[in-house]
Amino acid sequence: MSVIGRSVPRLEDPPLLRGEGAFAADISFPRQLHMRVVRAEMAHARLLAVDVSAALALPGVVAVWTGEDVATIPPIPFRATKLKGLEPYCQPILARGRVRYVGEPVAVVFAENAALAEDAADLVVADLEELPALLDAAAPPRDFDATHATEPAILRKSYGDVEAGFAAAHAVLDLDLSIGRHSGVPLETRGAIARYDAASDTLELHGTAKKQHWNRDEIARLLGRSPTSVHLFEGHVGGGFGVRGELYPEDLLVCLAALRLRRPVKWIEDRREHLVATNHSRQQRHRLRAAVDAEGRLIAIDNVFFHDQGAYVRTHGARVADMSAGLLLGPYAVPAYRATGHFRLTNKTPAATYRAPGRYEGTFVRERLMDAIAARLGLDRVEVRRRNFVPVSAMPFTRPLDALGTDVVLDSGDYALLLDKALARFGWEARQADIARRRAAGESVGLGLGFFVEKSGLGPSDGVRMSVDPTGVVELVTGAASVGQGVETALAQIAADALGVDYRCVRVVRGQTNRIEFGSGAHASRVTVMSGSATHLAGLALRDLALGTAATLLQAPKESLTIVDGMVCRADGPALPIGEVARALAAGTKLSRERAVPGLTTEGWFHSDHMTYPYGVHLAQVALDRMTGAVAVEHYLVAYDVGRAVNPKLVEGQIIGGFAQGLGGALFEEFRYDERGQPLSTTLADYLMPTIAEMPPLDVLVTEDAPSPLNPLGVKGAGEGGTNAVGAAIASAIDDALGNKGLVTRLPVTPREVLRLLGEIEA
Amino acid sequence: MSVIGRSVPRLEDPPLLRGEGAFAADISFPRQLHMRVVRAEMAHARLLAVDVSAALALPGVVAVWTGEDVATIPPIPFRATKLKGLEPYCQPILARGRVRYVGEPVAVVFAENAALAEDAADLVVADLEELPALLDAAAPPRDFDATHATEPAILRKSYGDVEAGFAAAHAVLDLDLSIGRHSGVPLETRGAIARYDAASDTLELHGTAKKQHWNRDEIARLLGRSPTSVHLFEGHVGGGFGVRGELYPEDLLVCLAALRLRRPVKWIEDRREHLVATNHSRQQRHRLRAAVDAEGRLIAIDNVFFHDQGAYVRTHGARVADMSAGLLLGPYAVPAYRATGHFRLTNKTPAATYRAPGRYEGTFVRERLMDAIAARLGLDRVEVRRRNFVPVSAMPFTRPLDALGTDVVLDSGDYALLLDKALARFGWEARQADIARRRAAGESVGLGLGFFVEKSGLGPSDGVRMSVDPTGVVELVTGAASVGQGVETALAQIAADALGVDYRCVRVVRGQTNRIEFGSGAHASRVTVMSGSATHLAGLALRDLALGTAATLLQAPKESLTIVDGMVCRADGPALPIGEVARALAAGTKLSRERAVPGLTTEGWFHSDHMTYPYGVHLAQVALDRMTGAVAVEHYLVAYDVGRAVNPKLVEGQIIGGFAQGLGGALFEEFRYDERGQPLSTTLADYLMPTIAEMPPLDVLVTEDAPSPLNPLGVKGAGEGGTNAVGAAIASAIDDALGNKGLVTRLPVTPREVLRLLGEIEA
Repeated sequence: MSVIGRSVPRLEDPPLLRGEGAFAADISFPRQLHMRVVRAEMAHARLLAVDVSAALALPGVVAVWTGEDVATIPPIPFRATKLKGLEPYCQPILARGRVRYVGEPVAVVFAENAALAEDAADLVVADLEELPALLDAAAPPRDFDATHATEPAILRKSYGDVEAGFAAAHAVLDLDLSIGRHSGVPLETRGAIARYDAASDTLELHGTAKKQHWNRDEIARLLGRSPTSVHLFEGHVGGGFGVRGELYPEDLLVCLAALRLRRPVKWIEDRREHLVATNHSRQQRHRLRAAVDAEGRLIAIDNVFFHDQGAYVRTHGARVADMSAGLLLGPYAVPAYRATGHFRLTNKTPAATYRAPGRYEGTFVRERLMDAIAARLGLDRVEVRRRNFVPVSAMPFTRPLDALGTDVVLDSGDYALLLDKALARFGWEARQADIARRRAAGESVGLGLGFFVEKSGLGPSDGVRMSVDPTGVVELVTGAASVGQGVETALAQIAADALGVDYRCVRVVRGQTNRIEFGSGAHASRVTVMSGSATHLAGLALRDLALGTAATLLQAPKESLTIVDGMVCRADGPALPIGEVARALAAGTKLSRERAVPGLTTEGWFHSDHMTYPYGVHLAQVALDRMTGAVAVEHYLVAYDVGRAVNPKLVEGQIIGGFAQGLGGALFEEFRYDERGQPLSTTLADYLMPTIAEMPPLDVLVTEDAPSPLNPLGVKGAGEGGTNAVGAAIASAIDDALGNKGLVTRLPVTPREVLRLLGEIEA
Repeated sequence: MSVIGRSVPRLEDPPLLRGEGAFAADISFPRQLHMRVVRAEMAHARLLAVDVSAALALPGVVAVWTGEDVATIPPIPFRATKLKGLEPYCQPILARGRVRYVGEPVAVVFAENAALAEDAADLVVADLEELPALLDAAAPPRDFDATHATEPAILRKSYGDVEAGFAAAHAVLDLDLSIGRHSGVPLETRGAIARYDAASDTLELHGTAKKQHWNRDEIARLLGRSPTSVHLFEGHVGGGFGVRGELYPEDLLVCLAALRLRRPVKWIEDRREHLVATNHSRQQRHRLRAAVDAEGRLIAIDNVFFHDQGAYVRTHGARVADMSAGLLLGPYAVPAYRATGHFRLTNKTPAATYRAPGRYEGTFVRERLMDAIAARLGLDRVEVRRRNFVPVSAMPFTRPLDALGTDVVLDSGDYALLLDKALARFGWEARQADIARRRAAGESVGLGLGFFVEKSGLGPSDGVRMSVDPTGVVELVTGAASVGQGVETALAQIAADALGVDYRCVRVVRGQTNRIEFGSGAHASRVTVMSGSATHLAGLALRDLALGTAATLLQAPKESLTIVDGMVCRADGPALPIGEVARALAAGTKLSRERAVPGLTTEGWFHSDHMTYPYGVHLAQVALDRMTGAVAVEHYLVAYDVGRAVNPKLVEGQIIGGFAQGLGGALFEEFRYDERGQPLSTTLADYLMPTIAEMPPLDVLVTEDAPSPLNPLGVKGAGEGGTNAVGAAIASAIDDALGNKGLVTRLPVTPREVLRLLGEIEA
């Protein structure tokens, strides 16, 4: 029985349960200095001078740098995008001449301990001349100054004849929808510990996450080093969610300091700075127009949106707008489509990807539209979706758009089937009846839904190195990373299944750039698809090598052999531990010399030109408290087709955690600013995250009806489906509770907003 | 012009010159404990009890272990040998029941700092009941106790009819020759720092040297772990010389403590314990009989010797006797030979390999014999050698013996040619005339010589991984190690030559078991031959891959391209930096997908069944001080044929340093014991090492007349030829000064010994 598909316990858990985890703050080196960042206290200002003299005078302070000290270091880069002209908007690692958001690094202090560094940072005085802050990304564009425009780029994607579609419309819908500014806020704040080993001329960066190889290459480039001389290491990661593991100014600063000061340098972000320093996300306003026919079928969509990038373009910032444009249509067949994305800068913390980036936003917008169509045409909300689904017969479905540099080709899916299963599981009909009764009794209750298509498994290539040692332990070295999602376990299951060993014999080495030349990290729900497929291929190749070698050792035909539980055996006869096969291939043995390279070792590489597209539906039941405006989520279902679940329990875990984050953005979390651009959400008392108390009864339905034809396992990524449609489904349910008038147009739907909407209805 | 053969500056030097070396003592981890070893103070005793209570009571002491606490850990292993029956004589990591040499570990203390650990160690009381100490390995064998014999094994190697040879002899010579007990004594004492990373279940050992992969495998086996979960790391090494990097009890103890105590554990050997704890070497007594014909040609040799192994068989201990038997004959053709090696245990520090192990001893013995033949038959000492040389026409010369598990096949050599060159360079004739004049004036002066054949390049296999990064930097990962001899530079030169880049662009990664699956370390003068040849093959393969890829990129025939100084170019046209070729092969590129595995990366493997045999001659001129007995070495030449010198300056450096060590064993260094087995040489005031003041005018002649046919570069190892014949040549010269009477029969020839011999002559 294959270990794939079984909810085996996580390999990751023992050290975590024993309190032996190694998170960024747990990493230290002798003689290390501590770095503290001095941050801008105005949202937009001329930076006239920085006085570091008092800080430098403090005993134990080793160095204080301002922008002038790091002027030769290029700014933080971003990953390639089709948007041109963004290069001038990259963030310098320390501000020079101007600050553009509260929290922007203007100086750094290096001291013997963290408390001293913090004290010294308080003594650094930045002379700022305040300028007007721009906070509304949908305001008309203007210039910040001679070099900076508020709208550096406009993103356009389209196909079909949109104007003709509108001309032929039975009805045109016009929506103005906004998603609030929120973000990942992982339990573990960021951290970075750099160490320069002069003996080997090697720069090490510890406490990294997500995308080590790309960051290694960029750090090397920015510091003028060979990538071979820079190693990034990942330990335990307390949540990534798209924000952790990006390349930030602090990462460069600790590296540069380790090189210059010849001492290890440690920086651990505190929560307050996390909320202004780590990437924000989501904030976007869509002015959506849609043309439909009399049956509620979509004819054309015109998607104009304003992407609030914040003050700078960092790492994956430009990709959110790209996905908001390219992936908006989700499961629906739309004959004509045009997206116009206004890429706008504001005086806020830079924004980039956060779990289901561009899709949480797009699903909210699209599903609000589907509800609006139903309302306008007097149709059932479910039925409107069903009528617009890309049918299973049309799969694979090529949509003339691209996202993340790949053509959008929906690889497989039976959307109607999943919707049926979800509605049945949720008891949609029965709940509707119940809700009718409760409404009659005066309650404000409603049901909502959001259907979505996720994307996962971004290529182009991924590889692993897999080897067996003489004790039968399998080492799987991958350029993938783990942000806590269970990568080791899932990859171990895939490796064990292909090779024929116990998955607990597989040691997964990840996030260590010195162990494998290439890697793509963990992002975009790509690991199980890409690294998993590479692991599968490596495992099969390793199995073949083991069988061929064992055939010689056992003097039996290769075809008569199989590997079960780490033993190479044949039905009738002798068995050989796989470790013995490895020993027979060790360097110097007769068998190893007959091959070009010794070792029971292989590499597996998997290539893919297209993403895989898992899909799902969220169903919600809510009740509004008319006195407080509070929204009680009474029941919730996430149904998600992942093609094939390697470890169903891990998929469920991803969905449950993802849902909680989606719920935060739907009801609670928002980074707010006052009119001068001062952040108002700089503590977790102001930035409200859902706790276990806010978690509703949550049901999860994982299906495997549409395996991906694009990889040997049929898997699709599972990391973001729990988040994707929460805003959409909750908004739909609240709107239903308010009478399905399309009143819910922005997230989060806070109690204050609910009260306002209730007031609007009563007025 | 090839960079091979050029004395380019060492890549290793910059960090060392800047004081940024990372030797064992420089390595620390937060929260580390310090280990101190409590050592036996009697040479042979029953260990009745160990009282650790007072030590444990000291605040800051975390643990104290005795033999009982580590009883489940197997003893220190030794590498495979043909000698059977030695297994019971391995050393337990802490003594139980009996101690067998002064310095044997009986307990270990772990404390918060090194001083505290040392203080606590003084409080540990071992209750010992003294037993008679056995100190003379040539004494008749007896039993130590029921399980331990003083002669656990006898080693026999022979060919030809020895008895018939003696029967037919014109003359039979009978010599009794002894080599004193001395050893490597590197500038840096040993050290070991272990760290257990519970997060990844990985045990790390830092401060290692010489043979990381074998040690990794053994540590894993002894501790019941998978080798994949144990990593050994080498930093800078302050001299190896065969003694550092062996697997010692302390290595196991820090590893075990890191696992049990869950804190890093550091141990740094102090000089006093180094002199009793680290392997001794050399001590051997030969009773040599030789049959010669009337022309002084050897007919048969009977080599009976007594190898003083000390108290236990550790790591490479058994190999010295093996080489003393198998390699004694050196450059001479001998029709019949028999070696009988009495492998004897004594109550002294265990002995094992030290630079030119078995050959320093064997050359002293053989060359004393050649002098004796000359004296007996009234022949010129040089002429006797010449008559017995294996002629160049007989090469490759198969000698029906084995050493280190390989058949002895002298691969190439023109011994007479080198002897001629050396005599000419030294001015042997002129010096003889000068000496005759000085003797006539009453001086005791003499000339001596020692011819030898070294062995190097032990197989069977070695491999490297070589890759180019987008900046054009070449990373060469090797399982070889560096003990300071210039490995990085030599391998970089070989890599650069094969690939076509500047050798300074090559980063050599060595001694890191997590970077390459297999490795053979640095010992037996094998690195340049084995790792160098693997590097050469990898470089050629990498060049081929680069040219093929560039051919596509430049749209030019591959044959028209070459690589010069890191640029792929053709005579008439465009050039491409090799880093760009690497970029074109990065994971995900079109070109990389056409290949199975991305990257401008190759592995190179080299296999060899036979060793290579460099050879040389040492010529010495000495003057004896009749008042003090001091020996002044007035001039000295080392002539050495290494086949091909990758970096002549490094070869010279090896020879000069090696000579100094040989000189120590010839005149100064000796581990002495009193009659109860108490060591008398526990400080550098008692154990006399040569300093710069003792270094004579030294001339070095490196020749390349006999490239090895066994590897593509023609190289032979150069690490031990400076040491090999110093004892022989100095003894020969002293004997010459004393009238060529064969009086010098033991090393070192101390002033006291010289005075004794002068007295003997006068008597």
